[in-house]
Amino acid sequence: MAQSIKDYITSNKDRFLSELIDLLRIPSVSADPKFKEDVFNAATYVKNRLAEAGAEKTEICKTAGYPIVYGEKIIDPSLPTVLVYGHYDVQPADPYDLWKNPPFEPVIKDDRIYARGACDDKGQMYMHVKAFEYMVRNNQLTCNVKFMIEGEEEVGSANLGTFVKNNGKKLKCDVVLISDTSMIADDVPSITVGLRGLAYLEVELTGPNRDLHSGTYGGAVPNPINILCEMIAKLIDEKTRKITIPGFYDDVQPISDEEKQAIKDIPFKLEDYKKDLGISAVMGEEGYNTIERTSVRPTLDVNGIKGGYQGEGAKTVIASTASAKISMRLVPDQKSEKIAELFTSYFKSLAPEGVKVKVTNMHGGDPVVVPIDSVEYRAASKAYNDTFGKKPLPDRAGGSIPIVKLFEDELGVKSVMMGFGLDTDQIHSPNESFGIFNFLKGIETIPYFFNYYVEMKK
Amino acid sequence: MAQSIKDYITSNKDRFLSELIDLLRIPSVSADPKFKEDVFNAATYVKNRLAEAGAEKTEICKTAGYPIVYGEKIIDPSLPTVLVYGHYDVQPADPYDLWKNPPFEPVIKDDRIYARGACDDKGQMYMHVKAFEYMVRNNQLTCNVKFMIEGEEEVGSANLGTFVKNNGKKLKCDVVLISDTSMIADDVPSITVGLRGLAYLEVELTGPNRDLHSGTYGGAVPNPINILCEMIAKLIDEKTRKITIPGFYDDVQPISDEEKQAIKDIPFKLEDYKKDLGISAVMGEEGYNTIERTSVRPTLDVNGIKGGYQGEGAKTVIASTASAKISMRLVPDQKSEKIAELFTSYFKSLAPEGVKVKVTNMHGGDPVVVPIDSVEYRAASKAYNDTFGKKPLPDRAGGSIPIVKLFEDELGVKSVMMGFGLDTDQIHSPNESFGIFNFLKGIETIPYFFNYYVEMKK
Repeated sequence: MAQSIKDYITSNKDRFLSELIDLLRIPSVSADPKFKEDVFNAATYVKNRLAEAGAEKTEICKTAGYPIVYGEKIIDPSLPTVLVYGHYDVQPADPYDLWKNPPFEPVIKDDRIYARGACDDKGQMYMHVKAFEYMVRNNQLTCNVKFMIEGEEEVGSANLGTFVKNNGKKLKCDVVLISDTSMIADDVPSITVGLRGLAYLEVELTGPNRDLHSGTYGGAVPNPINILCEMIAKLIDEKTRKITIPGFYDDVQPISDEEKQAIKDIPFKLEDYKKDLGISAVMGEEGYNTIERTSVRPTLDVNGIKGGYQGEGAKTVIASTASAKISMRLVPDQKSEKIAELFTSYFKSLAPEGVKVKVTNMHGGDPVVVPIDSVEYRAASKAYNDTFGKKPLPDRAGGSIPIVKLFEDELGVKSVMMGFGLDTDQIHSPNESFGIFNFLKGIETIPYFFNYYVEMKK
Repeated sequence: MAQSIKDYITSNKDRFLSELIDLLRIPSVSADPKFKEDVFNAATYVKNRLAEAGAEKTEICKTAGYPIVYGEKIIDPSLPTVLVYGHYDVQPADPYDLWKNPPFEPVIKDDRIYARGACDDKGQMYMHVKAFEYMVRNNQLTCNVKFMIEGEEEVGSANLGTFVKNNGKKLKCDVVLISDTSMIADDVPSITVGLRGLAYLEVELTGPNRDLHSGTYGGAVPNPINILCEMIAKLIDEKTRKITIPGFYDDVQPISDEEKQAIKDIPFKLEDYKKDLGISAVMGEEGYNTIERTSVRPTLDVNGIKGGYQGEGAKTVIASTASAKISMRLVPDQKSEKIAELFTSYFKSLAPEGVKVKVTNMHGGDPVVVPIDSVEYRAASKAYNDTFGKKPLPDRAGGSIPIVKLFEDELGVKSVMMGFGLDTDQIHSPNESFGIFNFLKGIETIPYFFNYYVEMKK
């Protein structure tokens, strides 16, 4: 197969890129209702490309929100089945003014594709469509494949649970294959073996029933912005940077010596990290290093805050309301629902008399760790070894893919997370990009995984 | 005069209102560059109305920013001269969605005019134009009058200082007359005898050089929103609600027993105040009551804050920057410049390693107190007594009119502040309004002030 897949990529590379670029042109931002039609258009685009690649029974499955694209190729029911999961929705692109090129007008520069979703997850999802196309057209498919590509990953996959629960038979499989994480570096391949969970909440404070003149009322009424700041400040201990919510750490599993050692083995230069981010110092939980803080320890970050006058110049107003979006990354064995409840009652308890507090639980997901002695992990490891020329490292990622836990619970199968992007791809940020090297390396590696997986399952 | 001015108002009321409404239609928001043309249009409108009312040498005086409208009527150089000051610019109107009627489409409802600027200061300024018109047309003008109506009051009157310095002769006068404050109630007239000063600053924190994915980087990098909240929280002591900036209170004059008594004499019901604002508790500096907190004590309020994702839904981002607009109201003998410096160095000292802090001093003004035994105060007091039927209370206002101090320093004259609006007019807020009773009562009272002032000056 080695020469065959390489040749196929060489001959079809331009078409692969042009198809991906067409998909990236569709602003399928699931968080913002104004892109509703675009999100639906992206689903149709994916369905059509899947069918062209050789998938059968392709279908746009309705949900209460955005649809799930399904397709399959069953070559022999007695063979193993791999379910490929990905998503066609993207993060909001704002702030738009920080993009060097408009986020939905993809450009290729310095061997990278720049666009919102280039890596997360359109680029990584589309690797699977093209690897599948290769296997079908060259008679290399050694097992059954199912595709389930959703459109609500960036807003918490609210309707995927119901879909998976109601379609157990249709989705029956032996393993779920996902490319929605990153690897350590182009020359340091890695496989994601852990994901943090997420609890994402919105808080809103109301003081006076209307905006007030700060001269007339200043000093006498509860100012919701000042108070919001005071309440947020109390969520993290200033010295230890530990989260102060009572019970927050109760279920956090300590890091084993083995894990500590594995983290030490990951090549990491703090100076390069700080330089890349333009910061003079890192900041995080006392007693842990940067890799631990971003992978095996839980966190709390304010993702957005607003209140009062935000325009040019000065306005002397006391706002009626102020709000913030706050998320926590969770690690085994924390539970998203429990953490959201702990946060809510603690946050409310911090409010002084005179303000009203509203807390909304936006979405969440439990953390997950996958074993490294499984068939799928070993198959993936061998595949990377063949195409990168070195054994990949097992890596616990800081991000969250809540659905991994869902697949375990509802389908009874594990996932294997073969990410080909890099942390520096600026996903969720302006100027997101995906290396063409990474896109093509993904397409090259995936068929090896299928081969080894079927071989080892025998 | 009593019957004459009343009759004149009755006959001309509809025209007065319709002229004011035309002025209110012009969105002369000085803080926002997109309204630039409108601000200039408002100046032209005011100049034309002044000329029609009988002013001579009307002129639109250029400055480095928005122009100052000038006009005068010199009947006899040996008589006293009153300089009327006001402003034709208005506060920004956002949030627009909270207005029941669009802010620049004035409506009259329940005997009130609703529009941005209805009270502050277009309505109150226009009372003077119409009172002047009455005096000129009915041969009632007993002294010289000059008008100076500026267009940058809501952004700190940045260019007025230069104008006043350079035009000492043109602006020569015996007293400045201003209606840009409020009175206690329609049946409790009051004259403003003190104004708080202002220091208004903008702070911006920068953490990483770009927005980051909170999964990948969360827990390891300084999050500028969290840190901004922590720094803001430190500006006010949580328990005593005292401002913690070292040296902040050094120049604050204690309240005299006489003032304490005068404050006690002001009719005030805390329950009504809380009910009007929809709050279950007031909040402010320990040891002082609500009137003291809003008049004779200094304050610190965040007027606006922003950072990260503010759209619909959830975005898991760590923002690169976060910023806030923070203002302090000052009392005698605090100095705006000194307080801005104290704030800046203290705020910067609060920043942890890993974030960059930028502090911009936006504008300010020193606090002012005017004597109540002056000719102008006594003349105003007698005027209110005639038209309201009761003696007005001296009142120290919470707001700031930085130019009062400027007139003292540059023109060597005191100001008399005859405000006819109410605290409940929602100036600087959505649904600003001005009572027609108040508008007309102002027009009625002003000519009395002129009469008594000239009489007492003899």
